[in-house]
Amino acid sequence: MADGRLEAFSDGVLAVAITLLVLDLRLDSTAGHASLAHQLGDHWPAFAAYLVSFFQIGVIWVNHHALLALAARVDRVLMFYNLLLLLWVTTIPFTTSTLAAFLRGGGSDARDAVLLYGLSMTGMGVAFSLILWRLVRHNLLRRPVSRAEANRALLRFGLGSLVYPASALIGLLWPPFTLIAMALLAAYYMIEHTPILPAYDDGAAAVVL
Amino acid sequence: MADGRLEAFSDGVLAVAITLLVLDLRLDSTAGHASLAHQLGDHWPAFAAYLVSFFQIGVIWVNHHALLALAARVDRVLMFYNLLLLLWVTTIPFTTSTLAAFLRGGGSDARDAVLLYGLSMTGMGVAFSLILWRLVRHNLLRRPVSRAEANRALLRFGLGSLVYPASALIGLLWPPFTLIAMALLAAYYMIEHTPILPAYDDGAAAVVL
Amino acid sequence: MADGRLEAFSDGVLAVAITLLVLDLRLDSTAGHASLAHQLGDHWPAFAAYLVSFFQIGVIWVNHHALLALAARVDRVLMFYNLLLLLWVTTIPFTTSTLAAFLRGGGSDARDAVLLYGLSMTGMGVAFSLILWRLVRHNLLRRPVSRAEANRALLRFGLGSLVYPASALIGLLWPPFTLIAMALLAAYYMIEHTPILPAYDDGAAAVVL
Amino acid sequence: MADGRLEAFSDGVLAVAITLLVLDLRLDSTAGHASLAHQLGDHWPAFAAYLVSFFQIGVIWVNHHALLALAARVDRVLMFYNLLLLLWVTTIPFTTSTLAAFLRGGGSDARDAVLLYGLSMTGMGVAFSLILWRLVRHNLLRRPVSRAEANRALLRFGLGSLVYPASALIGLLWPPFTLIAMALLAAYYMIEHTPILPAYDDGAAAVVL
Repeated sequence: MADGRLEAFSDGVLAVAITLLVLDLRLDSTAGHASLAHQLGDHWPAFAAYLVSFFQIGVIWVNHHALLALAARVDRVLMFYNLLLLLWVTTIPFTTSTLAAFLRGGGSDARDAVLLYGLSMTGMGVAFSLILWRLVRHNLLRRPVSRAEANRALLRFGLGSLVYPASALIGLLWPPFTLIAMALLAAYYMIEHTPILPAYDDGAAAVVL
Repeated sequence: MADGRLEAFSDGVLAVAITLLVLDLRLDSTAGHASLAHQLGDHWPAFAAYLVSFFQIGVIWVNHHALLALAARVDRVLMFYNLLLLLWVTTIPFTTSTLAAFLRGGGSDARDAVLLYGLSMTGMGVAFSLILWRLVRHNLLRRPVSRAEANRALLRFGLGSLVYPASALIGLLWPPFTLIAMALLAAYYMIEHTPILPAYDDGAAAVVL
Repeated sequence: MADGRLEAFSDGVLAVAITLLVLDLRLDSTAGHASLAHQLGDHWPAFAAYLVSFFQIGVIWVNHHALLALAARVDRVLMFYNLLLLLWVTTIPFTTSTLAAFLRGGGSDARDAVLLYGLSMTGMGVAFSLILWRLVRHNLLRRPVSRAEANRALLRFGLGSLVYPASALIGLLWPPFTLIAMALLAAYYMIEHTPILPAYDDGAAAVVL
Repeated sequence: MADGRLEAFSDGVLAVAITLLVLDLRLDSTAGHASLAHQLGDHWPAFAAYLVSFFQIGVIWVNHHALLALAARVDRVLMFYNLLLLLWVTTIPFTTSTLAAFLRGGGSDARDAVLLYGLSMTGMGVAFSLILWRLVRHNLLRRPVSRAEANRALLRFGLGSLVYPASALIGLLWPPFTLIAMALLAAYYMIEHTPILPAYDDGAAAVVL
């Protein structure tokens, strides 16, 4: 661990953000409310968005963990990039609730909600790439990395970042597509390793963080 | 401790979820409100649900702690199971507030609220069993465990998971039963040990985590 | 430190509870609202309650820290007492907002709000005494403590716990008294040491935690 | 690290406070709402305030981290100063939402909102100076510091604290100035080092925390 407090603070922000998502799940129990079962059916975008965003932030945590485990030390610029990452992550409860609220209405509002959601995911992906870039280019890693290996890692991370805006843009045609694509992306990044393996790596251990 | 950050993140999520429960305790002080004493009596399901859910999450923390203390290392699949556990735990503030809001009304809404509450508890129980399964079957424990011992532990955990949906189903006949059963379950799991004892175990230490 | 995760979880809950207090500071900016300056003056009980409760929880953290630093190990019963303590602490944002909302109205509502606030403080004080009792009576401390020293510590802690309900009862005559008394108690416990000093203690170090 | 739990608790409070800021980003999706795009444009002060306050708290964390890393030990007075710092930091979500809500209206409300925002920043700056003062004057640092070096550090920190109220006062003439000045201050403190360098310092490492 390069810097216990950087990780502790990031863990705290990610833990609060992932738990705040639940505040959007609210049913109406005031006089004249629809039946609970009917409300649950009616609010499906809120539950779908909750599920997708929960795993998005969960996977961000898993990968943040894996990336920072590679660092031997942390500098101020990396701290700033980490703040940028957290900034985008903390917008996820907001863009998720906006998506949940406007998705069913369709029209330009649903498209704008999809763009907003894609923006927070894209910003998050870019910040992740900046962190990797800083680690690789400023020699903050625990072990030397060849230029070819570094380029390969940056390319793969960078390409990954492009999938988020692409998913949002395709969502302009059919908004629910974005939710589905983001869910698949979360599943992909759950399985996918960080491109640079730790020094003490050997087969099975590569999966261990 | 197998992985400090896995535990730190889980602690964070559990701490936020257990504290967010209090957001459902709100009294009305706007003009024309009922007296405070009357409101307190009127909101008893909110206070009962708060108490039960607080100890549910508290006991989840105690057992999460005990289970992870057995792990020598953590793999990606276990991280995913842990996320599943946290997903169900973070729904508890929502299913608790739903139960509190709809329990008194009775009828199909109270029954649906009970089912919803039972669902989050059942999902949590299943995720716990998955974590234990992974630890036992993939050799992630700190000490070797015989097949017989592993089967016994999985059976006991698995049976425990069945009590949650059973409590919810019985609650369909009389909704408050679910709250009472969940309170008793929390009390039971507070006393009950993790089935597999740590390697450095000896009498008194078994109680120590 | 007896158990890193017990302290991490408690720190998390205390940090969330102390920060949630701010959610009660809300001004009205909808059409036809009173001027900001007027609202600030009008909401003084909210600000006073915020300040007092912030330091209450802050001091609870300082003393929780000092108490747990004495423990060599932690058992399940102590974990349960710790959960009890956290239960009462997490009610503080609720009892604080209730006090803030009903204090100005006076009458029986103000008195009930004072009793409710006193209840969460008394419960917290009792839970603290239980933790100290468990540490002392079950030999969980880092160094042996004489029976006389243990009795003195328990007596002082126990007496402290009585001051909370007393402050609430006097508040029935003049509700703002409770806020003032609680503020003074927080100030007292900020200065006051834990009755049992750590083993490595020497003059100056006694103040250090 | 002088005291793991002081930092863990502070990290928790800062993480919750920085994440709670997002609760102010809410759009209206009830019947008859304005279009999402229009609402986003209409709420620009909320987004600008979110951004500025996020980096304010982020930079507070970075500097809190750097300052506490200098401490060899922590005493009760320093804990109290730290609580004071956290008190002011936890008011930032409130003063930020107040600024966001009243900035556009202009008039005395916008000026009062600017003063309130400036107050929480000034209080935070003063608390930071108190922590530095305590560390320097009571010999809590990891290495001896000459009187000249200590005075220089205190002077620079103290002058920094004056910029916050100055920014708020100038904001009385044109309220948005305060937001801009606070953003510039956050950027400045992101780059600026803590005045006293750690003992193990050497060129590049000075940037590392």
